[in-house]
Amino acid sequence: MKNFNRVNLKLIIRICGYLLLTEAAFLFLSLLVSLIYGENDALAFIYSILLTVGLGTMAVVFTRNEKNEFGKREGYIIVSLMWMVFSLIGTLPFMWSGSITNFTDAFFETMSGFTGTGASILNDIEALPHGVLFWRSITQWMGGMGFVVLALAVLPFLGVGGVQLYSAEAPGLTADKLQPRVKETAQRLWLIYLGLTLIETLLLWLGGMTLFDSICHSFTSMGTGGYSTKQASIEYYTNPYIHYVIILFMFMGASNFTLWYFALKLNFKPILKNEEFRLFVFIILSFSLVIATHLFLTEGYGIEKAFRDSLFQVVSIISTTGFVSADYMLWPPVLIAMIFTLMFIGGSTGSTGGGIKVVRILYVFKNIYFEVKRLIHPKAIIPIRLEGKTVPQPIVNSLFAFFVLYLFSFALGTLLMIASGLDMDSSMGAVATSLAGIGPGLGSTGPVENFYHVAPFGKWVLSFLMLIGRLELFTFLIIFTPAFWKK
Amino acid sequence: MKNFNRVNLKLIIRICGYLLLTEAAFLFLSLLVSLIYGENDALAFIYSILLTVGLGTMAVVFTRNEKNEFGKREGYIIVSLMWMVFSLIGTLPFMWSGSITNFTDAFFETMSGFTGTGASILNDIEALPHGVLFWRSITQWMGGMGFVVLALAVLPFLGVGGVQLYSAEAPGLTADKLQPRVKETAQRLWLIYLGLTLIETLLLWLGGMTLFDSICHSFTSMGTGGYSTKQASIEYYTNPYIHYVIILFMFMGASNFTLWYFALKLNFKPILKNEEFRLFVFIILSFSLVIATHLFLTEGYGIEKAFRDSLFQVVSIISTTGFVSADYMLWPPVLIAMIFTLMFIGGSTGSTGGGIKVVRILYVFKNIYFEVKRLIHPKAIIPIRLEGKTVPQPIVNSLFAFFVLYLFSFALGTLLMIASGLDMDSSMGAVATSLAGIGPGLGSTGPVENFYHVAPFGKWVLSFLMLIGRLELFTFLIIFTPAFWKK
Repeated sequence: MKNFNRVNLKLIIRICGYLLLTEAAFLFLSLLVSLIYGENDALAFIYSILLTVGLGTMAVVFTRNEKNEFGKREGYIIVSLMWMVFSLIGTLPFMWSGSITNFTDAFFETMSGFTGTGASILNDIEALPHGVLFWRSITQWMGGMGFVVLALAVLPFLGVGGVQLYSAEAPGLTADKLQPRVKETAQRLWLIYLGLTLIETLLLWLGGMTLFDSICHSFTSMGTGGYSTKQASIEYYTNPYIHYVIILFMFMGASNFTLWYFALKLNFKPILKNEEFRLFVFIILSFSLVIATHLFLTEGYGIEKAFRDSLFQVVSIISTTGFVSADYMLWPPVLIAMIFTLMFIGGSTGSTGGGIKVVRILYVFKNIYFEVKRLIHPKAIIPIRLEGKTVPQPIVNSLFAFFVLYLFSFALGTLLMIASGLDMDSSMGAVATSLAGIGPGLGSTGPVENFYHVAPFGKWVLSFLMLIGRLELFTFLIIFTPAFWKK
Repeated sequence: MKNFNRVNLKLIIRICGYLLLTEAAFLFLSLLVSLIYGENDALAFIYSILLTVGLGTMAVVFTRNEKNEFGKREGYIIVSLMWMVFSLIGTLPFMWSGSITNFTDAFFETMSGFTGTGASILNDIEALPHGVLFWRSITQWMGGMGFVVLALAVLPFLGVGGVQLYSAEAPGLTADKLQPRVKETAQRLWLIYLGLTLIETLLLWLGGMTLFDSICHSFTSMGTGGYSTKQASIEYYTNPYIHYVIILFMFMGASNFTLWYFALKLNFKPILKNEEFRLFVFIILSFSLVIATHLFLTEGYGIEKAFRDSLFQVVSIISTTGFVSADYMLWPPVLIAMIFTLMFIGGSTGSTGGGIKVVRILYVFKNIYFEVKRLIHPKAIIPIRLEGKTVPQPIVNSLFAFFVLYLFSFALGTLLMIASGLDMDSSMGAVATSLAGIGPGLGSTGPVENFYHVAPFGKWVLSFLMLIGRLELFTFLIIFTPAFWKK
């Protein structure tokens, strides 16, 4: 207990309490949907809400006098704990409504929801009641931006420790500007997020989608989650307009939100000058072009369809959304391999996209370029610059560590999935897609398949990979190191 | 021409001349073998020698008055050029003896030889004349230690520029101790190399192998090359003793040669304290143990066979030799995946082994461990230590660049191989095995298969990967960057 006393356990419980009350609010929204449609899942939501509110209130009341002073450790623990607890509670509507009867499956589906992965075990999505479908979609919306950002925007007292929390949940390279007014930043992020979601809903609705489906798909494309209310995902919709709208919003969801803030102020210069954004656009266009040309020349696709199918799939994968408008497993092998490669890139920093993230890819290639210079002029000091600023060495080491740990997790995860009985390609696909939070993998985990057939052991492995991938590996894993608990 | 004038072209030609004469000496050894067996390949060697000696003499004579002053650029050019020229000339005995009729195949076979890869296109190795078999084996012995180290040991005048050459051919992390007396170091390395090769020959001969086969297998195990004089590789030999001898010498070939120098002086402390060596042994033992246990428990292997087969295959792959004593493609999928993982580790620095190399893996995991510490104590300066010394930041960046470029080459190579018509698993295996210089891959490029069926385009891609892999990526690629030619 000596070690436990060093972290502020009471405060951890208190903040978890507040976050639980936030989750209850979203459960309440789902209950409303359920009541509107008058389906049999309302009770499941009522019980879930009662339990969540009860737990949350208890946690808050019993720790009332605790001061909001916490450090890095508390931040890591709270964030890791919350993602576990949210997912556990998130299974309740699935289980109690009878939509998913098996706990392993329900946990997989919920974790896949909150982490914005979108890998599903459901064989008949259209059969679910609307409340459950709404809950399934809104988990991706909540998780996309992150619970902490949500809490920071809503709760009034998280000011000081908020930065610790924020950097534990979003440990990318962009926390620099958040220091002074983390609350305002969080509110601004949520306003942009909400605004774009509303616009997308409207655009999809105008394109002939039902209002309910429009809302759900907007949640899951802005959150780059990828859950659809249709078993066939976006392939269900034949109207190209809907495909293009979703492409646009997956793209926006996976771009740095700060850029859209500038766009709102009609200041486009920072957008065009942003190196990460430019590389993101370049990768999307070059991959789409190669794939579209290939489909057009060798597979007999029409020009528009070749362009749309490749752009949709490329944006869906790189943004880590995972919607499907065409089964890429039917494409020639080299195109499948290109899609698989995209799974290792991911979205931008400050976005809802996951994966390795474009800025790390950018940095990595800059470093290779500079290494060439260093080899020729070994005495010269050649610092690496990003956005005009020199990247300090601790960031370099940190990036290196992330990159390697990511690939190591991929290798180890693949070994475990093969051991669970999947073939090699399906395993690699499943692990890559889970770590990056995409959805579809390769082979038997491909875009028109689902994860129902995966062995329970494999489902737990994948759920774990989704979680550590969403929290950018270190946040969760650090808690299990002796160094974390040592003084 | 302005750019070309900046590098000392005459000196480059002169050194290439000397290296060609060295290659001629090895061709002469093969000619002797051919004459002893009185087979029809003698003429092929005589013509090859005449051409090589002619070219070499011309190069040396016409550049006689050039001083041995050269810098980094000349070093990179000479080394890259030599590996190309050696491989081109190395094809002649194959082509002129009629052993391989197709130039693409002959180049693949020779490049695979010099780079110590051991991937073959031959369908009936036993049908080759002894001189050609000897040449095929000795290319791996030469290439294993490197042409430059050879030249440094033999040629009297390479003292000053030698360091530049050495660090271009062996750009690992160990050039530090070589600075003062590079010639003595090279001689010492070659003596140990030669000594161990002789001992292995003797041990194999005593085990019942013919003298000829003993010599050839010693060349290719100490050079961690993997060419066998038998189509079935080491599986041909049923005597366990032979398997264990080869395991031992593959292991020694892929360990840092400096350690064997200490061992000769009966100083074992540096060996036991060497962090890279310890990790190397640990990886071998842990992988072998898991694989052996699996084969014993689920596949019905006897204990000794389970142990020997797994140890042999593990050492063969991690040492980047590529001998085969059992077809690992017949093992359960998870064990195949473990073997595939080993392909990304490789041998030690200062050895004939290739791949990413153990010291980089060691560094990479240390960095992850230290990153955890840094995350908890962000203000503390925590340097990374290796062998008791702090690793300087330029080395960190260099290592990072290598690691990423290696994986990027793997990804791009795999895409190209899939485009050439191979399936995904075979492509991944072929590329991983070529980059690391191992030999057998996966699927249709697996241990009992060969590379004959690969399309010509694919063979060129793999040859290129072997070359850049052997020269640790930057040495060859740097020449094609604009930065290399700019002042």
